[in-house]
Amino acid sequence: MQDFDTVGAHVLADFWGCQFEKLDDEQLLMDYLRQAAKNAQMTVLGEESYKFSPQGFTGLLLLSESHISIHTYPEHGYAAIDVFTCGGGKTQKAIDFLKEVLQPSRVNQMVVRRGIPESVETSLSA
Amino acid sequence: MQDFDTVGAHVLADFWGCQFEKLDDEQLLMDYLRQAAKNAQMTVLGEESYKFSPQGFTGLLLLSESHISIHTYPEHGYAAIDVFTCGGGKTQKAIDFLKEVLQPSRVNQMVVRRGIPESVETSLSA
Repeated sequence: MQDFDTVGAHVLADFWGCQFEKLDDEQLLMDYLRQAAKNAQMTVLGEESYKFSPQGFTGLLLLSESHISIHTYPEHGYAAIDVFTCGGGKTQKAIDFLKEVLQPSRVNQMVVRRGIPESVETSLSA
Repeated sequence: MQDFDTVGAHVLADFWGCQFEKLDDEQLLMDYLRQAAKNAQMTVLGEESYKFSPQGFTGLLLLSESHISIHTYPEHGYAAIDVFTCGGGKTQKAIDFLKEVLQPSRVNQMVVRRGIPESVETSLSA
């Protein structure tokens, strides 16, 4: 089990039915991402963002645990959100926070386990 | 089909068996990410990176098409790579380039379709 520190949980969440105003507000969204990371006890090491014209936003947080990203389409009430954390169960806490503040009416969510070493995969399937 | 511009392809690729030296080389990895984006005709709008101590690296490219990320564990020959692009089929080209330069001996890859509106989901499953 020595390789288990590569293992991470990657949540891919598609939020629908969010407010245009929220999904187009650069500062608000970056604050939400930072708060989501903080609430989930993640450490932010860097950030990058871009406001598209006439609408839309992308925000990326580089975490010591991996990353959080958001891509918004305000005109469709849609946001594509990723929370990828290595070696911890903090992922869902960050997603739950973003659900609370962005209030999507519908969420398509998938959790992908990353970084599972072949030796562990083999023992799991044995 | 008016909502189709939200639709994107998100490739999650776990690379194993890569060289320690490559996975721990900040400049090389950022160059690879930029080249992967360029080869796939993506537009880089921003970037963020972090070199961990004693080893390991995270690089993020913010694209007009969404994002590319890499998280490396040189000590395990492991890299977790994401290429997420909205509204285009460029994703695989970027992943293929990274395979070529990082030469993993094993790849676990998954493609997730993001941003499919409910109306389209319904018509597809009907």
